[in-house]
Amino acid sequence: MIKRETQVDQILKDIRGIVNQMVPREAKITEIEFEGPELVIYVKNPEAIMKDGELIKDLAKVLKKRISIRPDPDVLLPPEEAEKLIFEIVPKEAEITNIAFDPSVGEVLIEAKKPGLVIGKNGETLRLITQKVKWAPKVVRTPPLQSQTIYSIRQILQSESKDRRKFLRQVGRNIYRKPEYKSRWIRITGLGGFREVGRSALLVQTDESYVLVDFGVNVAALNDPYKAFPHFDAPEFQYVLKEGLLDAIIITHAHLDHSGMLPYLFRYNLFDGPIYTTPPTRDLMVLLQKDFIEIQQSNGQDPLYRPRDIKEVIKHTITLDYGEVRDISPDIRLTLHNAGHILGSAIVHLHIGNGLHNIAITGDFKFIPTRLLEPANAKFPRLETLVMESTYGGANDIQMPREEAEKRLIEVIHQTLKRGGKVLIPAMAVGRAQEVMMVLEDYARIGAIDAPIYLDGMIWEATAIHTAYPEYLSRRLREQIFKEGYNPFLSEIFHPVANSKERQDIIDSNEPAIIIASSGMLVGGPSVEYFKQLAPDPRNSIIFVSYQAEGTLGRQVQSGVREIPMVGEEGRTEVIKVNMEVHTIDGFSGHADRRELMNYVAKVRPRPERVITVHGEPQKCLDLATSIHRKFGLSTRAPNNLDTIRLR
Amino acid sequence: MIKRETQVDQILKDIRGIVNQMVPREAKITEIEFEGPELVIYVKNPEAIMKDGELIKDLAKVLKKRISIRPDPDVLLPPEEAEKLIFEIVPKEAEITNIAFDPSVGEVLIEAKKPGLVIGKNGETLRLITQKVKWAPKVVRTPPLQSQTIYSIRQILQSESKDRRKFLRQVGRNIYRKPEYKSRWIRITGLGGFREVGRSALLVQTDESYVLVDFGVNVAALNDPYKAFPHFDAPEFQYVLKEGLLDAIIITHAHLDHSGMLPYLFRYNLFDGPIYTTPPTRDLMVLLQKDFIEIQQSNGQDPLYRPRDIKEVIKHTITLDYGEVRDISPDIRLTLHNAGHILGSAIVHLHIGNGLHNIAITGDFKFIPTRLLEPANAKFPRLETLVMESTYGGANDIQMPREEAEKRLIEVIHQTLKRGGKVLIPAMAVGRAQEVMMVLEDYARIGAIDAPIYLDGMIWEATAIHTAYPEYLSRRLREQIFKEGYNPFLSEIFHPVANSKERQDIIDSNEPAIIIASSGMLVGGPSVEYFKQLAPDPRNSIIFVSYQAEGTLGRQVQSGVREIPMVGEEGRTEVIKVNMEVHTIDGFSGHADRRELMNYVAKVRPRPERVITVHGEPQKCLDLATSIHRKFGLSTRAPNNLDTIRLR
Repeated sequence: MIKRETQVDQILKDIRGIVNQMVPREAKITEIEFEGPELVIYVKNPEAIMKDGELIKDLAKVLKKRISIRPDPDVLLPPEEAEKLIFEIVPKEAEITNIAFDPSVGEVLIEAKKPGLVIGKNGETLRLITQKVKWAPKVVRTPPLQSQTIYSIRQILQSESKDRRKFLRQVGRNIYRKPEYKSRWIRITGLGGFREVGRSALLVQTDESYVLVDFGVNVAALNDPYKAFPHFDAPEFQYVLKEGLLDAIIITHAHLDHSGMLPYLFRYNLFDGPIYTTPPTRDLMVLLQKDFIEIQQSNGQDPLYRPRDIKEVIKHTITLDYGEVRDISPDIRLTLHNAGHILGSAIVHLHIGNGLHNIAITGDFKFIPTRLLEPANAKFPRLETLVMESTYGGANDIQMPREEAEKRLIEVIHQTLKRGGKVLIPAMAVGRAQEVMMVLEDYARIGAIDAPIYLDGMIWEATAIHTAYPEYLSRRLREQIFKEGYNPFLSEIFHPVANSKERQDIIDSNEPAIIIASSGMLVGGPSVEYFKQLAPDPRNSIIFVSYQAEGTLGRQVQSGVREIPMVGEEGRTEVIKVNMEVHTIDGFSGHADRRELMNYVAKVRPRPERVITVHGEPQKCLDLATSIHRKFGLSTRAPNNLDTIRLR
Repeated sequence: MIKRETQVDQILKDIRGIVNQMVPREAKITEIEFEGPELVIYVKNPEAIMKDGELIKDLAKVLKKRISIRPDPDVLLPPEEAEKLIFEIVPKEAEITNIAFDPSVGEVLIEAKKPGLVIGKNGETLRLITQKVKWAPKVVRTPPLQSQTIYSIRQILQSESKDRRKFLRQVGRNIYRKPEYKSRWIRITGLGGFREVGRSALLVQTDESYVLVDFGVNVAALNDPYKAFPHFDAPEFQYVLKEGLLDAIIITHAHLDHSGMLPYLFRYNLFDGPIYTTPPTRDLMVLLQKDFIEIQQSNGQDPLYRPRDIKEVIKHTITLDYGEVRDISPDIRLTLHNAGHILGSAIVHLHIGNGLHNIAITGDFKFIPTRLLEPANAKFPRLETLVMESTYGGANDIQMPREEAEKRLIEVIHQTLKRGGKVLIPAMAVGRAQEVMMVLEDYARIGAIDAPIYLDGMIWEATAIHTAYPEYLSRRLREQIFKEGYNPFLSEIFHPVANSKERQDIIDSNEPAIIIASSGMLVGGPSVEYFKQLAPDPRNSIIFVSYQAEGTLGRQVQSGVREIPMVGEEGRTEVIKVNMEVHTIDGFSGHADRRELMNYVAKVRPRPERVITVHGEPQKCLDLATSIHRKFGLSTRAPNNLDTIRLR
């Protein structure tokens, strides 16, 4: 679909000349190509380059590109032989659990329980591996929980490595094309998620490039595509899709209201370019997208897309860790920063037009430390426009302090269990579930909770993904896991619910139980099933620990509706009486509350010229914009969907 | 280029059924078709319909469309025979000067010095003509001055009548297509003329339709197309052009900064739809576009378009008089209202989505009576958003009162003539020139001026067009012309300058002279030639009577620059010393001054919800927006080019 790539051959020719001059002959360069946001130099003898510590840096400086050195595919040992050799070289005590080859980048992933032994003293073992097998080794700790998602993503990338390399080259040639225009203007258009929550989608436009940040679906409005999907009817978006001009899509985090429409673009062949996001977001969004298909099917709806469309998402995703700076078009440079909202969530920083303008788009973010994550990054190299979420942007949207929220949670649980009731905590499978798990685990460890905690829906699998990315977790959790050798996710108080029979047993049993189940807003998923059956018994409690969007069953229950007509199993409507206790404890939210939002604007550096409030009900966005303008004297706006704001 | 026309055949079939039921058989309907914004019913016997005075009204009410009854082409008398018959029927004293047939609409235009005699008592003569020749007669007074422009436009429409009818049908089928979308949103994008003067272009978008209001060129910035042309690089505009989705272009008035890029669209096949404007605007803009080609050629530039592209503009223009309401797309209804700026200038009123929203776009306007025109209309059936010009929007932009301005003008002229100097008044050929002519004529008539007034550039031809549309002139002028039988445009003090030799004679002569010459801002045209030669003599005066845009020679001279390097005839640069007296008398401006602008907002009915200020230097647009917000409590905005504002 990408149709640009103007004059890349000439540009590459010039670059090849420079590289061949700077790199010593004995490295034996075989190929120089753009692959994704990098210039890749294939050599028969990587050591010849590596031994000069400064050479790659010098190349990057001269060429103003990120450089990657890769072994020429011809020198790579065949995977079977390489695997055998690795097992020979690495001591048994390292406990290698998996070796996976990625031919598209010449990398071998080595999962081991003791990764330090694979690396060896001063990296000696690793160096030996490189010398013998030629593949570039990447060592990771074996995740304590097996994630099916991660496994299948790895499988796909491996089996599709040929396509993948082709794709990366196409992307590289697009990024490093000769710009047609001088960046004279920059503007953003709200395609969704402006003055609303759901279907986040923001189109960044310059006269040279087009980049989409997030592409979500409003799951609470699926009966009306006009409200559920981003504005496909915006003419600028139509143009960009039809002409194949979308340079990239960036995903801030995995939740469906930010990523849920991505596979739809592949289903209808509307996009063929790169998706940039963090590795955990890639895995989590794939999990949620798959779950979304299943939820739709179980609701008797036609799914919006098919599993194979999610596969395309995987094939088109280029992951970036926090802080990695990458060119994603001739005039846009991207960096992702921690957002503190859920695992892998990112604030998107765009450096446009070589200094013309810098935008930070917070996505959903949290500005105090949580059990799971560090607070959002508030320091950027440059910043003129800040686009920030406003979910809790109203003047009175002050959340309970963390400690108080935790105490209140334990209190409600205690009271409920004491009277023989069960506790239902609907939670998004990704984020709130793990946060609440960490709280409960902490109290359980000191004996303050004495009941099994059931995890239903995608929560267990999402947790497995959390254990695969410990470097994305809070400092405290990393310390527990790495230094104290204790992984709270593995606590034996947690019980995954395997199927609907087990679920029914839990509901029917007379034993006390704490149930954390997705979805978080009671729109599909097992939480709805639990709710239906637990709601009539006044001994039970439901505890809402996260934002309940307008139009959801969760919002209805939360706001006090006591009789709810629902379609039963045989398709006829039954009225559910809500006799259970209904609690809202908002101190666990992954969203910054009003105080944090204002505090973020106070703390963010450098001070932006302009703040644009999005992702909130209209009054919240407006209220926050007004307050920021009054307090900080910044220019603010709370635009509507389909408004376009020229930034430069 | 227009590609929609969905399900029109079915719609027409239904309509034909209704019409055939309501119209009496003896009318003998031969065809029913959409042509432009009308439903045209062709009949062999028009009288059978006309005799029932209510029938057409009833049809219009039932079908909710404008109805036009036309004689079937087969019954029309051949033009030669018809012409002969008309001369026989009409008494000689009527003094018919021209008879022109327009087969595309079955109309015969009869120009006569005494049109009343063509019409006859109670319309008897006219009725007789209709009966005999079958063509629908349209009677106009023979203009006292012959306009070459009007003549050639009429020629083109006549000779291209087949193409024209095809075009009108295509337009009609587009307008009355079955809408694909419900109008859910309305937005406007500034493609030019936002926070600037020049290249006015505003794109109105609904989810169903696209309409462009004005398409001008900034003649002062031709060396940089990025500043001179509207934003072709806006993706929504690209989309609309590439997909052939532009339903219509509406032109507020003839000046090049509002109409000058129209032929460019036809040169590059970017548009094939209808242009709506008033009849005088059509004629005046064609005149100015032709002049623009000539000016560019004489400056040694490649013209932006060719005469044949202007011909396409003529072929694609559908004229509307003030107050005529027309559907121009399935969800947009257009009405033009007097703007008081120049002959034929209009405020564009759009009624969108069957009551969803109403926009008035003032274009350039004047809100006090001038010698030439009535003040702008300030009364609309409905109004939510007012888009208004801000040329004189600054707090201090108060123009001299008219009477004072006139006195000052006469004073400067007197003093200059007394000391043996010449007076140069650079004026836009269309508008200011005629306004100043009317002032000078009035003073000359009472003997207060005693010098020849030379009219150079397109002024004489533009004046001829003024005399062809007396119904568009001020009440006072109409009274003079029709009741008092005196046409001030024909005063013998006016002398058109026929060629450069005559021009040089005027410059070289020792006689006193008042010269009104275009262009008005000294960007090309004879005014520059006069300026060059008259500037060094301190006895001479130059009087600026209109707005001088940034970047123009006029602005330079006005702001006091006394030495101006200019390219001379042999291509080398010479420095022009400005020793002549430089006067600015702003009381003749065709633009509302600050007081009028504020007064307009106070008076306009109904009161709009929102005012958007455009067409002014940035500070003027901002200042006016702020003042309107403070004084009237309305929501206001002063958007940039490329900003998009969602109105609903």
